[in-house]
Amino acid sequence: MTITLPVPTPDATCCAAVTGGVLSIDEAERLAHTFKALGDPTRVRLLSLIAASEGGEACICDLTEPVGLSQPTVSHHMKQLVDAGLAVREQRGRWAYFRVVNDALDRAAHALRP
Amino acid sequence: MTITLPVPTPDATCCAAVTGGVLSIDEAERLAHTFKALGDPTRVRLLSLIAASEGGEACICDLTEPVGLSQPTVSHHMKQLVDAGLAVREQRGRWAYFRVVNDALDRAAHALRP
Repeated sequence: MTITLPVPTPDATCCAAVTGGVLSIDEAERLAHTFKALGDPTRVRLLSLIAASEGGEACICDLTEPVGLSQPTVSHHMKQLVDAGLAVREQRGRWAYFRVVNDALDRAAHALRP
Repeated sequence: MTITLPVPTPDATCCAAVTGGVLSIDEAERLAHTFKALGDPTRVRLLSLIAASEGGEACICDLTEPVGLSQPTVSHHMKQLVDAGLAVREQRGRWAYFRVVNDALDRAAHALRP
């Protein structure tokens, strides 16, 4: 029996690269949106904490102490990461759980090193 | 005549990755500094313009018109890219010339996709 796993549809906007020709304004805005979300030390630490968590997901309740910030502040940072497509959020009862979107990190890396 | 621009020395802190374990505060600050510089549409367009220029270098005098900004504003953006190690600057007479530091783009990409 052959099991076919879903293949992500190629994203037409996936392939703009900083060194792959002059970027259009739209392409530059999309890329900058991602990099801006990554342009804060707390946010890159939060991503690393989530990625290093068991099962690759973390409850917001476990993220506040390692970064030494209040839950509203961590929620605000996580919202920016989710808005940029770098993390996904799932509400389970009282708590929000987060996962890193590896495809989004791959696309951002591709933009720097095609 | 050949003009050689300075090549940055390899950085021992090159290899911290967002998904390679919990980042230290220092590692997170270094990475975020780079991504913050990339987190602006004008700056990623400037990098793409320089990378796409003949010989991989561009005079500031040729960068203002494509991005539609004044020279002081473009200079300010370029200073942030140089401070983040993403570009190098060389003064030749009246004009500043810039090159993209591909190693810095590679390191940033590696941090996202080791």
